[in-house]
Amino acid sequence: MKVIKSVSDMAVKASRLVQGGKRISFVPTMGNLHEGHLSLMRMAKPMADILVVSIFVNPLQFEPGSDFDTYPRTFQEDLKKCEDLGVDIVFAPMESDLYPEGFQTMVEVSEVSKGLCGDFRPGHFKGVATVVLKLFNIVKPRVAVFGEKDYQQLCVIRQMVKDLNLDIQIVGHPTVREPDGLAMSSRNQYLSPEERVRAALLYKLLKEAQERFEKGERRAQALITHVQTGLAKDPKIAVEYVSIRERDNLKTIDVVDKPAVMALAVHIGKTRLIDNIFLTS
Amino acid sequence: MKVIKSVSDMAVKASRLVQGGKRISFVPTMGNLHEGHLSLMRMAKPMADILVVSIFVNPLQFEPGSDFDTYPRTFQEDLKKCEDLGVDIVFAPMESDLYPEGFQTMVEVSEVSKGLCGDFRPGHFKGVATVVLKLFNIVKPRVAVFGEKDYQQLCVIRQMVKDLNLDIQIVGHPTVREPDGLAMSSRNQYLSPEERVRAALLYKLLKEAQERFEKGERRAQALITHVQTGLAKDPKIAVEYVSIRERDNLKTIDVVDKPAVMALAVHIGKTRLIDNIFLTS
Repeated sequence: MKVIKSVSDMAVKASRLVQGGKRISFVPTMGNLHEGHLSLMRMAKPMADILVVSIFVNPLQFEPGSDFDTYPRTFQEDLKKCEDLGVDIVFAPMESDLYPEGFQTMVEVSEVSKGLCGDFRPGHFKGVATVVLKLFNIVKPRVAVFGEKDYQQLCVIRQMVKDLNLDIQIVGHPTVREPDGLAMSSRNQYLSPEERVRAALLYKLLKEAQERFEKGERRAQALITHVQTGLAKDPKIAVEYVSIRERDNLKTIDVVDKPAVMALAVHIGKTRLIDNIFLTS
Repeated sequence: MKVIKSVSDMAVKASRLVQGGKRISFVPTMGNLHEGHLSLMRMAKPMADILVVSIFVNPLQFEPGSDFDTYPRTFQEDLKKCEDLGVDIVFAPMESDLYPEGFQTMVEVSEVSKGLCGDFRPGHFKGVATVVLKLFNIVKPRVAVFGEKDYQQLCVIRQMVKDLNLDIQIVGHPTVREPDGLAMSSRNQYLSPEERVRAALLYKLLKEAQERFEKGERRAQALITHVQTGLAKDPKIAVEYVSIRERDNLKTIDVVDKPAVMALAVHIGKTRLIDNIFLTS
């Protein structure tokens, strides 16, 4: 396994691979790799000839006052996991190399970035779209895999790829969960043991809403109210949003008569958690 | 010469060429080709194996109330000129194919888009950056040639390419001029015969300022005042701006002690004209 830290070295290496007829698959991460990330890599590995994983905690996507400084960084452990999994190249750029002085270009995907997390994390999806486009241009993948836990992010990237005519297949991987249903996330380790127990409620309620949908409930508000009521019973959980949107374009929907996604964000103590579930008949 | 109108056909064709080891050079245009465009093509032709010219009047870069509807469209004549010049592929996409329903991604290059034309054409450079990035992704060039007449545009594109890690060489071509010095532009044909005579004043004054600079004048304001005073003598010319900026990053400059560009924009009757000249010792 190669570890490349220089942007220009990675760009040259990728160009040579592509010119040599190799297909690159790509999993961008912020490191602190858990089973969710590893599942994306296992999915990406057989989809091309060379698997590249990037590790970069992207300052552009952390809104002011968020956890950029304290975000868990575990580079050596991450490298070991990548090596064990058969990653070919880990690309771990320096911030000053990816955003040199004078950097000033941002990519904005307007519609699908609105609502949901977009309302609570101003600038977040601009930061995500910009770094992902830069990484795509450097790594030159034919296919890239993203987790469905960050579902709005996945939609933003799909829309960007379509709108900017990038020849990259974007693949979503189903959310990987802990035994009690909590979606895996690097931020779960911020939870105290007591908060960790409470956090299982998120997926439990999403599953209940999905079951009600499958039994015939099509009114979005009824399903949302079920989840909101359930969350309100725990005084330690503060709800940011519970919402149902069209699955493919995140447009608001009152009657769930087409494929949809139910998404939520909450704070438990100081930790912000998100999750979602598909509603498809 | 191939004429390709479909975005996906062009993307597939370009991919095949690149995979076959061919290098593509690219001249994006809005058509209505004049000697300025043809000079860019002659420069681009020997720089790669395949010369692609795009013809697309990009609605995103026309601010409200500007000349999008009346912009001269001369497709058949343009094709003839491209064929005579040895262009390999003319890419002439439909608006609905480049911007399908739901299109929502924009690229913003913030700093160099400010001031100069950026102050008078809100959204213009966002539209330019977005369409050029799309065209680059579709056409997949190794080198692209732009005219220096639209100097701020050239700076925006250079900055975008650098910031987004695109592996494309951006080449500027010196402004091509009429015998009396007027910079060639499709918009020159909007001028009445009398206005056309007056328009020669722009380059005459820029040259005078350049001569004063070469004789030792380093105060930006003195050079600007010379041009402004000269333009003010013609009551039919309305000045938008006369400005001197650093040549490479368009930062404002009071003392011309590094490579600089003097740029101006005026209206003569209903026609907006721009021009610029380098100040380098």
